[in-house]
Amino acid sequence: MSKLYLVSAGPGDSELVAPKATAAISASSDLVAYGLYLELLGNVCAGKTHHDLPLGEEIGRARLALDLAASGKTTALISSGDIGIYAMATLVFELLDEQLQGKENKPEWLDVEIEVVPGISAMQAGASRIGAILGHDFCTISLSDLLTPWQTIEKRLHACGQGDFVVSFYNPRSKKRDWQINSARDILLQYRPENTPVLLGRQLTREDENITITTLEQLHSKDVDMFTLVSVGNSETRHIINGSKEWVYTPRGYQKKL
Amino acid sequence: MSKLYLVSAGPGDSELVAPKATAAISASSDLVAYGLYLELLGNVCAGKTHHDLPLGEEIGRARLALDLAASGKTTALISSGDIGIYAMATLVFELLDEQLQGKENKPEWLDVEIEVVPGISAMQAGASRIGAILGHDFCTISLSDLLTPWQTIEKRLHACGQGDFVVSFYNPRSKKRDWQINSARDILLQYRPENTPVLLGRQLTREDENITITTLEQLHSKDVDMFTLVSVGNSETRHIINGSKEWVYTPRGYQKKL
Repeated sequence: MSKLYLVSAGPGDSELVAPKATAAISASSDLVAYGLYLELLGNVCAGKTHHDLPLGEEIGRARLALDLAASGKTTALISSGDIGIYAMATLVFELLDEQLQGKENKPEWLDVEIEVVPGISAMQAGASRIGAILGHDFCTISLSDLLTPWQTIEKRLHACGQGDFVVSFYNPRSKKRDWQINSARDILLQYRPENTPVLLGRQLTREDENITITTLEQLHSKDVDMFTLVSVGNSETRHIINGSKEWVYTPRGYQKKL
Repeated sequence: MSKLYLVSAGPGDSELVAPKATAAISASSDLVAYGLYLELLGNVCAGKTHHDLPLGEEIGRARLALDLAASGKTTALISSGDIGIYAMATLVFELLDEQLQGKENKPEWLDVEIEVVPGISAMQAGASRIGAILGHDFCTISLSDLLTPWQTIEKRLHACGQGDFVVSFYNPRSKKRDWQINSARDILLQYRPENTPVLLGRQLTREDENITITTLEQLHSKDVDMFTLVSVGNSETRHIINGSKEWVYTPRGYQKKL
């Protein structure tokens, strides 16, 4: 039986990779991933055949992983964070779906056994570094309009504001896109206060991690890049300062009972 | 320096617990957690002083953990899933906030060093077991109206519908609450099709795991209990069947490029 693992490599720190992910990589002969992720994962990747493809070649990577597994090689397709959240897993199932509809000519893909290994996503790493900003109902929105029309993203930003969800923005900016995070800020400012706490988490849990706590009013694309996770509190999120230590948390309503 | 770890125990499978969480427990002399979580975690908990409190005593457990750490005992407060998502972390910061505002008389709490260790939440475990339902923008809503007014929850359900977010429901039902999940279904049916795929994941990644894929129209409280994670797709979520294997995924829009 040919096997394909869809493996979550976590936010960066190898101590945040689940043992199940490490075991899946160990069991594989072939790894499909960016080189950077393999560096972060360390020794477990040694001795494996490594298949890399340039950034932007997501479909190519998903195809390659299915092809390798279908050829009998136990294969791990690896994404950072959680492979099920804005990452490669959904693309593999899209390709299977196309084959099932007869739009591909890869019947061998349907014999591949697939196992998804979940992992810690950037929003969770970010929350853990500053307290508990995800402590109540939240949402995630990708600000990339390469695959999703901006009209749809805008609709979700308004829904997020109306529902007073804590929100984490993925893909807040890229080399070619810089205005989306500012538009998102302006929409949210229609619904929640200017001093709403905001986390900018760059390279979370990695050696060059940089964490900034700011406010919704101060959020600006100049402080954000493609390695930054942006989380915005809801109308009740609190930013507290205890000496040299700062925390941000979103209460669930226990204070009425304290 | 007194130390308090806020530790995520993951969904159940010990292979989904981050090494950093295991290390934090190892480094602690005192553990504050439900007995069940310690059973799932296994050997690493041996030889530690275990403090249990009944279900519903969340505030008591957070206080106890802060008191133990402040007394000089390295302490781990443990929640299943991600301790930052509908779990204990936010309560610890609420208590610190109360102390900073002078509403508590526990100045020693402010000397405790706190470290949060993130983990895999139930929605991620559920998604991994059926494919990639969280493949595009999503939200989470707790259906417990013990701490949050139903009016607020209802507002978020409508926002979720308007924004066409995939949604995971936490606390969908308890012994005393059984109608909320049916109301949530009826609200979402105003916005998305009757055949929208729904995951019911009970005791995810544990020995008695039970997974059902159904539709929004068929979602009913009789099939849900307090150990069930309910995730509802968005209007584009697909349920595909490949022989004896079923998958649910939410596309990101790559099919236009396939």
